[in-house]
Amino acid sequence: MADFRLMQDLAQEAKTKMVLLVMDGLGGLPHSKGGPTELEAAARPNLNRLAREGTLGQSLPVGHGITPGSGPGHLGMFGYDPLRFDIGRGVLEAFGIGVEVGEKDVAARGNFCTVDAAGLITDRRAGRIATDAARPLVEKLATIRLPGVTTEVRPVKEHRFVVVFRGDGLSAELSETDPQRTGVSPLPVRALQAKASRAADLFNQWLAEAHKLLAKDRPANMVTLRGFSGDPRLPKFGDIFKLRPACVAVYPMYRGVAKLVGMQTIAFDGDAPADEFAAVARAWKDFDYFFIHIKATDSRGEDGNFDAKVKAIEAVDQALPALMQLAPDVLVVTGDHSTPSAMKTHSFHPCPLLLWAPATVRADEETSFGERACMRGGLGTFAAIEIMPLMMAHANRLAKYGA
Amino acid sequence: MADFRLMQDLAQEAKTKMVLLVMDGLGGLPHSKGGPTELEAAARPNLNRLAREGTLGQSLPVGHGITPGSGPGHLGMFGYDPLRFDIGRGVLEAFGIGVEVGEKDVAARGNFCTVDAAGLITDRRAGRIATDAARPLVEKLATIRLPGVTTEVRPVKEHRFVVVFRGDGLSAELSETDPQRTGVSPLPVRALQAKASRAADLFNQWLAEAHKLLAKDRPANMVTLRGFSGDPRLPKFGDIFKLRPACVAVYPMYRGVAKLVGMQTIAFDGDAPADEFAAVARAWKDFDYFFIHIKATDSRGEDGNFDAKVKAIEAVDQALPALMQLAPDVLVVTGDHSTPSAMKTHSFHPCPLLLWAPATVRADEETSFGERACMRGGLGTFAAIEIMPLMMAHANRLAKYGA
Repeated sequence: MADFRLMQDLAQEAKTKMVLLVMDGLGGLPHSKGGPTELEAAARPNLNRLAREGTLGQSLPVGHGITPGSGPGHLGMFGYDPLRFDIGRGVLEAFGIGVEVGEKDVAARGNFCTVDAAGLITDRRAGRIATDAARPLVEKLATIRLPGVTTEVRPVKEHRFVVVFRGDGLSAELSETDPQRTGVSPLPVRALQAKASRAADLFNQWLAEAHKLLAKDRPANMVTLRGFSGDPRLPKFGDIFKLRPACVAVYPMYRGVAKLVGMQTIAFDGDAPADEFAAVARAWKDFDYFFIHIKATDSRGEDGNFDAKVKAIEAVDQALPALMQLAPDVLVVTGDHSTPSAMKTHSFHPCPLLLWAPATVRADEETSFGERACMRGGLGTFAAIEIMPLMMAHANRLAKYGA
Repeated sequence: MADFRLMQDLAQEAKTKMVLLVMDGLGGLPHSKGGPTELEAAARPNLNRLAREGTLGQSLPVGHGITPGSGPGHLGMFGYDPLRFDIGRGVLEAFGIGVEVGEKDVAARGNFCTVDAAGLITDRRAGRIATDAARPLVEKLATIRLPGVTTEVRPVKEHRFVVVFRGDGLSAELSETDPQRTGVSPLPVRALQAKASRAADLFNQWLAEAHKLLAKDRPANMVTLRGFSGDPRLPKFGDIFKLRPACVAVYPMYRGVAKLVGMQTIAFDGDAPADEFAAVARAWKDFDYFFIHIKATDSRGEDGNFDAKVKAIEAVDQALPALMQLAPDVLVVTGDHSTPSAMKTHSFHPCPLLLWAPATVRADEETSFGERACMRGGLGTFAAIEIMPLMMAHANRLAKYGA
């Protein structure tokens, strides 16, 4: 799809409510050949009931064989062609913590890391230091002054922070400094286009100052910068689809991508699925579309912990009745990509997808929610950018095309 | 996909080995309603084992309902959008036998045929005369002289030859002379665009001379010309996907298409699947990607011989252990199109496809390699240009897209 004009022409308001429940990195692989995947291994009576009543399929976040980052993975589910809209991680992280990135600004995602006496990286995440431990280090970095630009540095979570440069003559066409492995030095920032040479100089000056300021700290005695990016100025989700969208997410980055498309983020306490569903319940009457993001599935997959990922899925299933009590008209459960615990990283495998819409769905014959059931599902294998047209249609929110 | 920039951005080198095993015209139809297809009827224990361990799907060489020629069929599997890159058969055949086709040249594929006293075609392939019998006829044709152009005529195999015109002011926008049926005369060459009128005149003069020179030969007493074409100047496969590709094929045309995309062709003796796999084994350490082409499946399909096509498939299956002993990381088995023996020609039906990649595949629940199992397969039905992204991903040769 990815044709906003078509959606804008056909989208119509309705009283129906839609929920996109994203279990980040949901798709998995068997622990041993022929065995169940994490999702298939999970006790999931509620998801299985929805699968029986709804229809299944496989969504491709970007395309066959393409492993998506979190930005493209979510943009696709929101109906934005991830090959057309390229958003840097710096901007995503910045938006997620409420830091504005203006037209002229350049944002970067920073990681505290550990380097040895020779300056070689020994831990790319500084032992994943606690958010509280990172805060005073971020305050040190915020004291760095550079000629002609203002800088804002803000903690995100654990070893992650955001730095934004503001001033004239900047460009985000810059190479990253994280070498993606240990035993080597952080890389210098390089200008990928001539117009970015001033920005490259400034970021390198900033990194040199950061190195001095952090020299005596342990384990976080250096930083790396990634995802240099500016405001991508995306068309607004609510305008395209004529609805009031809300985001419920624990992690800043996912609130960030939701804000980028113009969703309202809902604040809440706690970080369990039940807390997220309770937040949805409180906001239920004020919005038409809820994007709910569950992070634990991806985190446990990245840890390589099959059983913990199973438990993360079970926690969602157990909390699900509270969400279903709200009686959404359309519910889609899927992932933004696969994160098989066997691979400990995002993968290219399609995402299992469940579409439940009691009034409008054409149910298939599958009776459980799992990767192999989804391979046979009634929706087939399709691009994630088709999720929004499918949800809109099942919610009676798309007019007929043509006479 | 068909987006070379994306592939070039994401492709990364690795030590993994990939094999694309193409059984030309593999897809078939049942001999009688409800019965097995050629592939389903074949004894294929090795292919079935790979199907159990891997995942299946259906590939569409060009698109739903489109019957591909060999050029588009292969380009798609190599990742080149066959609707964007249009390669004539003349160029394919010429490259296959080592005849260069320069920027200004026009190549055509020729067929010896048999005509009666009235000039009507009685056999479009002159009884598929032997290559040795065709050679002196080709030498006769090579004596034809035309004003302002040089010509090169070269035998290919059996009734097939190649003719290349070289000179200024030529164009390949020409209509074919093979009427595709018997009982009628060969057609004249017509210019499809005004700029091709000189080329049309020259080819018609050449055909008139050929008619005179061959008048007393039997059964090959005339020729038809098809696939007028020039060098399409394709981007190179190895550059796009950052790998060292090799081709193992018995028939010149398939070596031709491989050369067109920059693959290295490997010489070997014999024409059995076992000979081809032995050639792969000898070259194994020097390349990352092997395109292996099996012709017999298509030839027996075109003969309309169900049982012989079954045997051609069984010959591949029997030889397969030698290929598997090399322990490829990724193996795809498919066809460039379907050639059901019931139709005696290429067809538009999707190609059964098997993807085997022990370290990275998400296996489906299918237990045999056949058309109907592939309809239910975990990969779904997808464009053949997705085969390369899928192989690259399963070989850990594609980086993550986006942050």
